[in-house]
Amino acid sequence: MSKVFVDLGISLDGFIAGPNGGPTNPLGDGGLGIHAWMFAQQAFRDHLQLGPGGETGADNRYVEALFARTGASILGKRMFEEGERSWPEEAPFRTPVFVLTREVRTPWERKGGTTFFFVNDGIQSALRQARHAAGARDVRISGGARTVGQYLDAGLVDELSQSVAPILLGGGVRLFDAVDHRAVAFDLVETIASPAITHLRYAVRRPTS
Amino acid sequence: MSKVFVDLGISLDGFIAGPNGGPTNPLGDGGLGIHAWMFAQQAFRDHLQLGPGGETGADNRYVEALFARTGASILGKRMFEEGERSWPEEAPFRTPVFVLTREVRTPWERKGGTTFFFVNDGIQSALRQARHAAGARDVRISGGARTVGQYLDAGLVDELSQSVAPILLGGGVRLFDAVDHRAVAFDLVETIASPAITHLRYAVRRPTS
Repeated sequence: MSKVFVDLGISLDGFIAGPNGGPTNPLGDGGLGIHAWMFAQQAFRDHLQLGPGGETGADNRYVEALFARTGASILGKRMFEEGERSWPEEAPFRTPVFVLTREVRTPWERKGGTTFFFVNDGIQSALRQARHAAGARDVRISGGARTVGQYLDAGLVDELSQSVAPILLGGGVRLFDAVDHRAVAFDLVETIASPAITHLRYAVRRPTS
Repeated sequence: MSKVFVDLGISLDGFIAGPNGGPTNPLGDGGLGIHAWMFAQQAFRDHLQLGPGGETGADNRYVEALFARTGASILGKRMFEEGERSWPEEAPFRTPVFVLTREVRTPWERKGGTTFFFVNDGIQSALRQARHAAGARDVRISGGARTVGQYLDAGLVDELSQSVAPILLGGGVRLFDAVDHRAVAFDLVETIASPAITHLRYAVRRPTS
């Protein structure tokens, strides 16, 4: 069966976004630095049609595999709204995307394969729809922190990957502030390291009591 | 020249000790779980004279190398006082240890090679004395968080290793709360991963402005 996964960038001091974040500063001060490694990869540049070039090593293979496995994504309302203002016309998903929201809205189709579906009846329903849309591919819980926390707490996530950037942000958003630490346990399954970034992949399960 | 290094265990949610820590609970609730991997290693069991047995793989080599490189340690006053109550008669250092304190006290020699020296004139002086005592070997800033933070902020640390345990503590002590995030920058130099623990080693430098 396809997997439900989370794949986040995180600073060495544990933030997935920097301080002073908001609608016009979605990654917070310095938060772009978490993802700097990714912008340099050929697969990322391809995916966003940024033109030729880019790195082709282990980090690029990581990005390629991430795009290849993702059959659908789930977003929280705020992350969607921030993206709605800032994504290019060809939104950077190229799959169905399910948005958790109270807003009733018809699907929003973008060029390049992204269609946003607005789900009003909760995280289980969004996951069911996303699984169906993804087929044999995996479902990514894309964010933000609160949405990821809800899926982790509910025991619905199979895998969590953190890409640890060697930077300090000094403040901002912590994923695990939104997670019940008694609800989940982790087993390391893979580490991929380059000078720019360290990818740590964990299988997620319920704790043994 | 010998190096000044920090080597800490940390939970996946970023804590070096759990919640509700105090004199009788120095690692905080659940904090022992950060170090569980280490207690299983042959080199650690040898070092603490816990008897034969223990694991002999990559994590054991990590512990062996850690003990072998350490020629002297520096401790904050609180960490020393907690240890003074709980260490066995053969204190688990087997090197000179320099304690940052206002207390004027003659050196305290323990069986097995550990002597505690009490330093009243600041972190630079403690480091100078520790370097001298360590000779060709390295100086470890052992903790706690505030002491490590002081040395990092002052630009006196060459290397930081974090051993990331796949557990959540939900609260406790964060190293980087005690660090000025504008004062230090990191370059990944090594990753060693086992199912039990992920060792991330960084070179520490001043940020390029």
